[in-house]
Amino acid sequence: MTARPANAHQARLLRLLRDEGPNSRAQLGDRVDLSRSRLAVEVDRLLETGLAVADGLAASRGGRRSHNIRLAPNLRFLGVDIGATSVDVAVTNAELEVLGHLTQPMDVREGPVPVFEQVLGMAAKLKASGLAEGFDGAGIGVPGPVRFPEGVPVAPPIMPGWDGFPVREALSQELGCPVMVDNDVNLMALGQMHAGAARSVDDYLCVKIGTGIGCGIVVGGKVHRGVTGSAGDIGHIQAVPDGRPCACGNRGCLEAHFSGAALAQDAVEAAQQGRSPQLAARLAEYGRLTAADVGAAAAAGDATCLDLIRDGGTRAGQVIAGLVSFFNPGLVVIGGGVTGLGHNLLAAIRTQVYRQSLPLATGNLPIVLDELGATAGVVGAARLISDHVFSPA
Amino acid sequence: MTARPANAHQARLLRLLRDEGPNSRAQLGDRVDLSRSRLAVEVDRLLETGLAVADGLAASRGGRRSHNIRLAPNLRFLGVDIGATSVDVAVTNAELEVLGHLTQPMDVREGPVPVFEQVLGMAAKLKASGLAEGFDGAGIGVPGPVRFPEGVPVAPPIMPGWDGFPVREALSQELGCPVMVDNDVNLMALGQMHAGAARSVDDYLCVKIGTGIGCGIVVGGKVHRGVTGSAGDIGHIQAVPDGRPCACGNRGCLEAHFSGAALAQDAVEAAQQGRSPQLAARLAEYGRLTAADVGAAAAAGDATCLDLIRDGGTRAGQVIAGLVSFFNPGLVVIGGGVTGLGHNLLAAIRTQVYRQSLPLATGNLPIVLDELGATAGVVGAARLISDHVFSPA
Repeated sequence: MTARPANAHQARLLRLLRDEGPNSRAQLGDRVDLSRSRLAVEVDRLLETGLAVADGLAASRGGRRSHNIRLAPNLRFLGVDIGATSVDVAVTNAELEVLGHLTQPMDVREGPVPVFEQVLGMAAKLKASGLAEGFDGAGIGVPGPVRFPEGVPVAPPIMPGWDGFPVREALSQELGCPVMVDNDVNLMALGQMHAGAARSVDDYLCVKIGTGIGCGIVVGGKVHRGVTGSAGDIGHIQAVPDGRPCACGNRGCLEAHFSGAALAQDAVEAAQQGRSPQLAARLAEYGRLTAADVGAAAAAGDATCLDLIRDGGTRAGQVIAGLVSFFNPGLVVIGGGVTGLGHNLLAAIRTQVYRQSLPLATGNLPIVLDELGATAGVVGAARLISDHVFSPA
Repeated sequence: MTARPANAHQARLLRLLRDEGPNSRAQLGDRVDLSRSRLAVEVDRLLETGLAVADGLAASRGGRRSHNIRLAPNLRFLGVDIGATSVDVAVTNAELEVLGHLTQPMDVREGPVPVFEQVLGMAAKLKASGLAEGFDGAGIGVPGPVRFPEGVPVAPPIMPGWDGFPVREALSQELGCPVMVDNDVNLMALGQMHAGAARSVDDYLCVKIGTGIGCGIVVGGKVHRGVTGSAGDIGHIQAVPDGRPCACGNRGCLEAHFSGAALAQDAVEAAQQGRSPQLAARLAEYGRLTAADVGAAAAAGDATCLDLIRDGGTRAGQVIAGLVSFFNPGLVVIGGGVTGLGHNLLAAIRTQVYRQSLPLATGNLPIVLDELGATAGVVGAARLISDHVFSPA
């Protein structure tokens, strides 16, 4: 088991080194509110834990040259992002740089035991390739609500077999390191904070439109999970009064009208009804259609597919407009599988938000597409566990 | 000018004494994470500032009897809650107990100068009645968005003449004490935290349905104001696609379909169209109708008024259901002028939220009516300024 920092000052130094890379003692002193002697004591103790190491002399600032301090180069975090139909496993260093990243198809409905066998196999593969000797912590994302303190999925609609499964405890035993578990959308939001568009923003929303739809909420630099861990569950906000029936039992939920699943279904209908020769050709070729097919056909000028994207973006934009009025964020990031639909989707969402929310809330509000793709979730997972490892025991 | 605490420990002790009343040194020691000797030092320094005083011997806990500590009994806060058509001014002691409270009709559209003349007159009246010799701080609520750090209203729709007026600075000079300014809905939420339903809840929403509609958002015990101070501006969330035109330029906003103003308009129509003899009689008698008339007629069994309340509650419930899914609060408080509509309104809102939001978010979610009435805003205002006065200078 890796050592942990002894107090909040050491924790703060570790996170600074994680987020900003190697720093000289002098620079660290500028950044933290500690006397010079106290800083020296805390840095020395950190070096004793082995979490940080001295690393050569820093450039002179006029006086005596000070040593560079950096996080131990052999620290390794495992980031796992379990989706509905695929799983991403990555290994990072202590600065959360991805050293290796595997993606495999997977069916979350098979339940936790076979999924974790697969995950452990992927982790072993990354180890075997020489990227890690062991892991100092692992972050796990699952596509459903999580009782965060215990790391247990709770009533997850698309993965019923996972309800109450002690993910944190079980994986911690298997991996022999600390484990934290969170909703996949929250990890995507954390990924934006570390490596994406939200690096300098404290209050933002990260909307993930994939098989389902969810929203990561960051308030004051911290993920807001809500009292039962279901915050951000926007897929079942009503988008269309008396609209399509939804799996949840209501009608008109956003997810029933626009999500990877809804879009695939719309695409098949359009193909079968002869409204889109491009989709019909793809359906004939592959036997199924996904959001990616709609995106490709739209890019090739298919009018029906452009309409599908615009309609979906408008629905999503309506709901996001409400969230913007309510939450007044500094940034909205749109991510997930359907971001492959690109700027047509973004334009539809933006139009709706800028039209519907009040100018005071949207005046300086950027709405952008996620640029990290599959990296967001695994980096977010590594960030989650690093926050834990870099906090006082 | 009142002294301020010198550090975070003293600030914490002051807030404890504010929220829990007099405490013995021994009890304070149990509550704060300080060594016995450090606690003694901090308490002694607090006594020197005059913000707290020793107040007799506490009951024995077996050993030497320790002194009771309490906040200085002569501290006075002014709480001001400016609405669209009336203003509340109250004076509280340091524990935020209301010692005197005045309400007067007022028109916020007249602009800040006449409104503050009135407020200062009311404050002088409270002083003259012997409740205060001076004020140690004043909290001011205004019915629009506020740039919080500066205490300046910004682009407030119903009070255009206030845009950019330096409320904090101007009143601070007039009153000779520190002043903080916030949106009236945020102060209502703070009032719930201190004296209302939210005393033991960290994450909650406080929906105010008055002339307009707004929502106070509390995350981790702190008001979330958003990046431009407009968080909680839910009156312009779309409740009815292609619905009624709204003053903001859009159609179907919640406020256009249900608010004190919308309800009054609906009531006049119902009276004029002969759909409600009760409302017709009241209109003939008073020449105008308000939400209170609808509530009174409904209580007397008027079916049209019951329908108006149910429809309005359903609209509000639809929007609140979305916020519950998004934010996953531990409590929702419904307040403002239309709470006079009582349990018919509450039932309609609850029905909609419990039907539309997922069970995980609503399982243990209380949705309750505000019980503080006009006290919520002024106590919230006093709480706001006390948080400032009881923080390190």
